[in-house]
Amino acid sequence: MSVHSDQVCEWRSPEQLKELLDLELRDKGESESRVLQYCRDAIKYSVKTTHPRFFNQLYAGMDPYSMVGSFITEAITTSLYTYEVAPVFTLMEDTLLRKMIEMIGWDEGGDGIFNPGGSMSNMYAVNLARYRYCPDIKEVGLFAAKRLVILTSQEGHYSISKGAALLGIGTKNVYIVSSDKRGKMIPSALEEKIKLAKSEGAVPFMVNATAGTTVLGAFDPIEEIADICEKYNLWLHVDVRSYIHSPTNNVSLLCLLCLLRVNSVAWNLHKMLMVPLQCSAFLVRDKTSLLQHCHSARATYLFQQDKFYDVSYDTGDKSVQCGRKPDAFKFWLMWKALGTTQLEQIVDRAIAMARYLAQEIKKREEFQLVIEVAPVVKERMMKKGSMMIGYQAHGDKPNFFRMVVISPQVSREDLNFVLDEIHNLGQDL
Amino acid sequence: MSVHSDQVCEWRSPEQLKELLDLELRDKGESESRVLQYCRDAIKYSVKTTHPRFFNQLYAGMDPYSMVGSFITEAITTSLYTYEVAPVFTLMEDTLLRKMIEMIGWDEGGDGIFNPGGSMSNMYAVNLARYRYCPDIKEVGLFAAKRLVILTSQEGHYSISKGAALLGIGTKNVYIVSSDKRGKMIPSALEEKIKLAKSEGAVPFMVNATAGTTVLGAFDPIEEIADICEKYNLWLHVDVRSYIHSPTNNVSLLCLLCLLRVNSVAWNLHKMLMVPLQCSAFLVRDKTSLLQHCHSARATYLFQQDKFYDVSYDTGDKSVQCGRKPDAFKFWLMWKALGTTQLEQIVDRAIAMARYLAQEIKKREEFQLVIEVAPVVKERMMKKGSMMIGYQAHGDKPNFFRMVVISPQVSREDLNFVLDEIHNLGQDL
Repeated sequence: MSVHSDQVCEWRSPEQLKELLDLELRDKGESESRVLQYCRDAIKYSVKTTHPRFFNQLYAGMDPYSMVGSFITEAITTSLYTYEVAPVFTLMEDTLLRKMIEMIGWDEGGDGIFNPGGSMSNMYAVNLARYRYCPDIKEVGLFAAKRLVILTSQEGHYSISKGAALLGIGTKNVYIVSSDKRGKMIPSALEEKIKLAKSEGAVPFMVNATAGTTVLGAFDPIEEIADICEKYNLWLHVDVRSYIHSPTNNVSLLCLLCLLRVNSVAWNLHKMLMVPLQCSAFLVRDKTSLLQHCHSARATYLFQQDKFYDVSYDTGDKSVQCGRKPDAFKFWLMWKALGTTQLEQIVDRAIAMARYLAQEIKKREEFQLVIEVAPVVKERMMKKGSMMIGYQAHGDKPNFFRMVVISPQVSREDLNFVLDEIHNLGQDL
Repeated sequence: MSVHSDQVCEWRSPEQLKELLDLELRDKGESESRVLQYCRDAIKYSVKTTHPRFFNQLYAGMDPYSMVGSFITEAITTSLYTYEVAPVFTLMEDTLLRKMIEMIGWDEGGDGIFNPGGSMSNMYAVNLARYRYCPDIKEVGLFAAKRLVILTSQEGHYSISKGAALLGIGTKNVYIVSSDKRGKMIPSALEEKIKLAKSEGAVPFMVNATAGTTVLGAFDPIEEIADICEKYNLWLHVDVRSYIHSPTNNVSLLCLLCLLRVNSVAWNLHKMLMVPLQCSAFLVRDKTSLLQHCHSARATYLFQQDKFYDVSYDTGDKSVQCGRKPDAFKFWLMWKALGTTQLEQIVDRAIAMARYLAQEIKKREEFQLVIEVAPVVKERMMKKGSMMIGYQAHGDKPNFFRMVVISPQVSREDLNFVLDEIHNLGQDL
């Protein structure tokens, strides 16, 4: 029996859902009661990502303070390009960026910007690394440049590849470095690929390492990668997909120490810290205004230099966007309410729950067999709405379930339920 | 006397505001009453962009249905990459995109995607235009490519330049086409620049036209530009910065007809239609899945092909992002409540108010003189908090105020107040 009476989702196929919702947009407006019914239906048939049995993505749950923060930012509806139009949120973003830089331990400071997601943060990293390698590319493009090469592991996020395509570098110039069985980048394989690129006459300029890979949750060996990056003068970016500070947890502490030597970090607060989507920071260890120089276009209608206040508070020209949501406020308010200590506890609890789950799986013999039938079990759990877990194949492994344990609402009962439910749903297969 | 008792902003300098707000993030969480006070302060010192006397940006006001929509999307906190995790919002986005394509009049259909803003939409256009010119660039990059050239007018938005830098094309390869005094691109000047690029051995591949330029609100002559684009086989993108459908307004109607021949459109709903930031659509007149082919990376953990439902509903691989907010719902709900007719009325009213303002300015002799003192008048209005209007210099014109009239709450009294207030604030100068 489930300890939760409500479902994670009320599954309907696209065809069924189209019939249930009256989607058509008409010339005439509809009544208040109809509009209210649309809201109810939207909520009813949406997935409950804050349900403790939602393990489907790298986000889950929601901090209530953060939700209040998001309602306020929505109601205030402003854009973070200038201090004059977003004075409070500009200062809060600045405070947060400084605090995050302080936590990483970049003693000489740094810079950063919130943006619409981890993929965008990774693209910022590629652009900054390229700008440091050759600032002229901003003006003249890549047409006369030597072939540039980005290095990332086979477990790295696909946004590096998307970024390479978008930025004109090309997906084939993303060299894939082998990972070990645990999913960690192999440093010697990295060095080989760097040498290969150089031998081809190409210019490796950036390494993307990952702290918490998307599928296996692996932490690349950042110290050893940093050594190699220093040797070859490569920009080292770390895609922090699930990390946050937790002094009681060795892995996170190790990771923190390693970040001291990296050039930039993508840090998603909407993942493990449960800020509502979107809340992502890009941080750069640089004191030369690289972010500003790389992205500025100096639009005269927005970034007038004859303003009556200190225009260094107009941060919009650091962004590739023009309008930009004040996502930082959601996290600032949550941090105020919980303090660093409780933020750490969120992570500690998630790690403890994941460990419990690993132990329980080891106890259950049948779980080596179940993995091959993941798509069918997935279909059954969705239609029942009892829980949501993602699956995929990986290397020579067939389809398996990727359990993402984040929400502090997740209990041992929930995890036992997950194991029992997978067993029950797949029993006849 | 102001007819509104409340201020548009309570101006505080960055230094003053830092003292007023307790920004520091601490180890220990703070009390509920303190957190509530932070919320009150954030609201108090934020600019009231929904105040009828906020004319500072290309957004103003807020539709209440749309705000309810935004609260629901925040509370549901999901991401639009797959149908399974955002079934309702996926279908609503699809409905909206189809409806917008139908309104433009692309009889053979088209494709599109919501994204974090107009700048991103313009970058999508550059990437798609480049992909159509040469799909191989996605894989191999620009290193072996001929020099590519984008054409835009001197009044075009700066995001085209930012996009050229980010996409590896280079800001110098954005060729600036002259505009006439009204701010419209001069077609003969466009053709000259195309010929110039070709004579240099470069490859012009895209023209960015603007419907409602940022500073002068000009509409480029899209029919004539389309003729030239067809002649030279160039992608024609239109950056629709302030346009929406309004059958009673000739300019909009003309614009609508012209869009029939363009390849892509950036359409910001968070501007004239008062959807809370962010709500932006990119639309493409293409039936060959160009958007999917150009951006897809086929991540196996997200876009499994062995799912139990029709995976064509998983639209996330059309995006350069991974996680993506369901911004479409805000506009869908508003459209349902108001109907197309009332959406049109919003625009009609804004146009009527802008016309009234133009008439009143003509009546006031002194308004030719005031423009040179804009920065001082701006400082005074901000510190008084009576209203907010942007200013800038332009060509050989000195600083002037850029009045953006959008919100349906704006009355004739407000516009009279604006003129009186500028007069009063600048009287001693």
